[in-house]
Amino acid sequence: LMTTSAVSIEKETVISQRPDTFLREAEDDGSIRARFQRMILEAQDSVCGALEALDGAGKFKEDAWTRPGGGGGISRVLQDGAVFEKAGVNISVVYGVMPPEAYRAAKAAATDQKPGPIPFFAAGISSVLHPKNPFAPTLHFNYRYFETDAPKDVPGAPRQWWFGGGTDLTPSYIFEEDVKHFHSIQKQACDKFDPSFYPRFKKWCDDYFYIKHRNERRGLGGIFFDDLNDYDQEMLLSFATECANSVVPAYIPILERRKDTPFNDNHKAWQQLRRGRYVEFNLVYDRGTTFGLKTGGRIESILVSLPLTARWEYDHKPEEGSEEWKLLDACINPKEWI
Amino acid sequence: LMTTSAVSIEKETVISQRPDTFLREAEDDGSIRARFQRMILEAQDSVCGALEALDGAGKFKEDAWTRPGGGGGISRVLQDGAVFEKAGVNISVVYGVMPPEAYRAAKAAATDQKPGPIPFFAAGISSVLHPKNPFAPTLHFNYRYFETDAPKDVPGAPRQWWFGGGTDLTPSYIFEEDVKHFHSIQKQACDKFDPSFYPRFKKWCDDYFYIKHRNERRGLGGIFFDDLNDYDQEMLLSFATECANSVVPAYIPILERRKDTPFNDNHKAWQQLRRGRYVEFNLVYDRGTTFGLKTGGRIESILVSLPLTARWEYDHKPEEGSEEWKLLDACINPKEWI
Repeated sequence: LMTTSAVSIEKETVISQRPDTFLREAEDDGSIRARFQRMILEAQDSVCGALEALDGAGKFKEDAWTRPGGGGGISRVLQDGAVFEKAGVNISVVYGVMPPEAYRAAKAAATDQKPGPIPFFAAGISSVLHPKNPFAPTLHFNYRYFETDAPKDVPGAPRQWWFGGGTDLTPSYIFEEDVKHFHSIQKQACDKFDPSFYPRFKKWCDDYFYIKHRNERRGLGGIFFDDLNDYDQEMLLSFATECANSVVPAYIPILERRKDTPFNDNHKAWQQLRRGRYVEFNLVYDRGTTFGLKTGGRIESILVSLPLTARWEYDHKPEEGSEEWKLLDACINPKEWI
Repeated sequence: LMTTSAVSIEKETVISQRPDTFLREAEDDGSIRARFQRMILEAQDSVCGALEALDGAGKFKEDAWTRPGGGGGISRVLQDGAVFEKAGVNISVVYGVMPPEAYRAAKAAATDQKPGPIPFFAAGISSVLHPKNPFAPTLHFNYRYFETDAPKDVPGAPRQWWFGGGTDLTPSYIFEEDVKHFHSIQKQACDKFDPSFYPRFKKWCDDYFYIKHRNERRGLGGIFFDDLNDYDQEMLLSFATECANSVVPAYIPILERRKDTPFNDNHKAWQQLRRGRYVEFNLVYDRGTTFGLKTGGRIESILVSLPLTARWEYDHKPEEGSEEWKLLDACINPKEWI
């Protein structure tokens, strides 16, 4: 598994003007990497536009950065809006030469051969959206593409590429119609490409967002996949694009329904406890976050995924049969929603 | 490094009545392990008594547990008091047979020999105290003792024992008189035993509580030591006892001064941001916490160290020269306080 932050070993530089492309001129062609960059730039614009329109008050603040080795990124954060407590939508496009250790860490298959430095390309969009209202769910999505050249000094070793990503929903309270709607949109996106995708990536998502020390999942899942390269490359680019384009129709209708629901202090406290679980998952288990922390990526971009506020009560147990208990039960025992 | 949670691989059982000792009858003698258990039980009582007296309103809730392999623990938590937001003071005394992998993980010195299962003993007191007032600092302390028998099937391998622990202060605002007082008490405790202890353990503390991805420390330090066995065992038991007994005189006078200081929303928000850093350190770096999460210790006892509430703002930077900036500067550049 490799995320874009994995290679941000050099320190980034904040730039005042965002560029139209992070690619070198000659590479900004019809290649998969160029088209993937175009896709994530467009997805960032369309998602941020939809979120600002929904929020009505908050505006995204943009920070652009480049790295000396090649490429850069654009972080956009909306904080303390009318609907959103904290919403981050980041893209990054980085490339250069990867140390052989990073290459070995990136590929699951072990090798005893010691390749030299390997040219790589990594691009992705990553987003976490935390609304204020405890009945409005948190959303996370992330789509990424990775490429390496063939290592020159390992005869026969191939050029590598893979896609990864997913979209998942983390409510504090269950509204069945919301969860069904969300999963249906994910299934629709999957079914356009392969009928095996939704069941496979739904389970992968349940398995991935698992807080082992709690024996519970972070939320109610969605889809997740990684290291995907055993399909046609064009098909997977289309699939990732379809998934990114599904974020707005999957999420905005739910927020429209829930953003103004009246709530009391108990609802808010439970949301804050679930936010605590979100922090636990991201800091302890999430591969992108933990890898980013270890390799010195742009820390504010990595940790923008954390909620504005979170809460930890000692030995809190929701009353059996309560709405809070039902959410926890669904996090412990993943369900088929559609 | 080995903490008591390292060996809690079996699931614990909550018991309704706390026992007077967790040791087997024959072992409850004048041995170091028996006297260390006595010391931490007494320290738990005296610290909790002083905290309740200071708080005036909150009371500690006690949970006792045993583990099937041997031993158990007593967790005490005061939540939402008048002075304390969350205060946990836990002790555990566990023993049994350690898998060889755990023994190798526990000892820094690598060995190619493969010992069989090794009888071990681990006891400790661990505490985190989070006050409500943003001018009143958080305190952490932890003292532990570890013993193994000589592995029977590795000829010549010795019986092992070591002490570890420390006490450190994490304010959101610097009051020089508080920090000087706190460090002076630590130095006094150290100087009774060895003049090299305070400078050595002060630096060890600054190095240990380092949030690498932020390039800053969690707080303003104190003392920290681990794997300590190159002094007389009786002397180190006395030293650990002296350190534990120094918690109340080091901390209570500071809280008396700061617990009722008027504050505004900005002070509270800054405290909450620093609490976020506390969460980051504990979940990402703290060896006891990360080891406990991995090995399945009693999760509520391990995570009682987390604050009741915490906050993460995107790209927050205190204004240069402000009180918040001064605290951050001291976390980035550790100072000699006395």
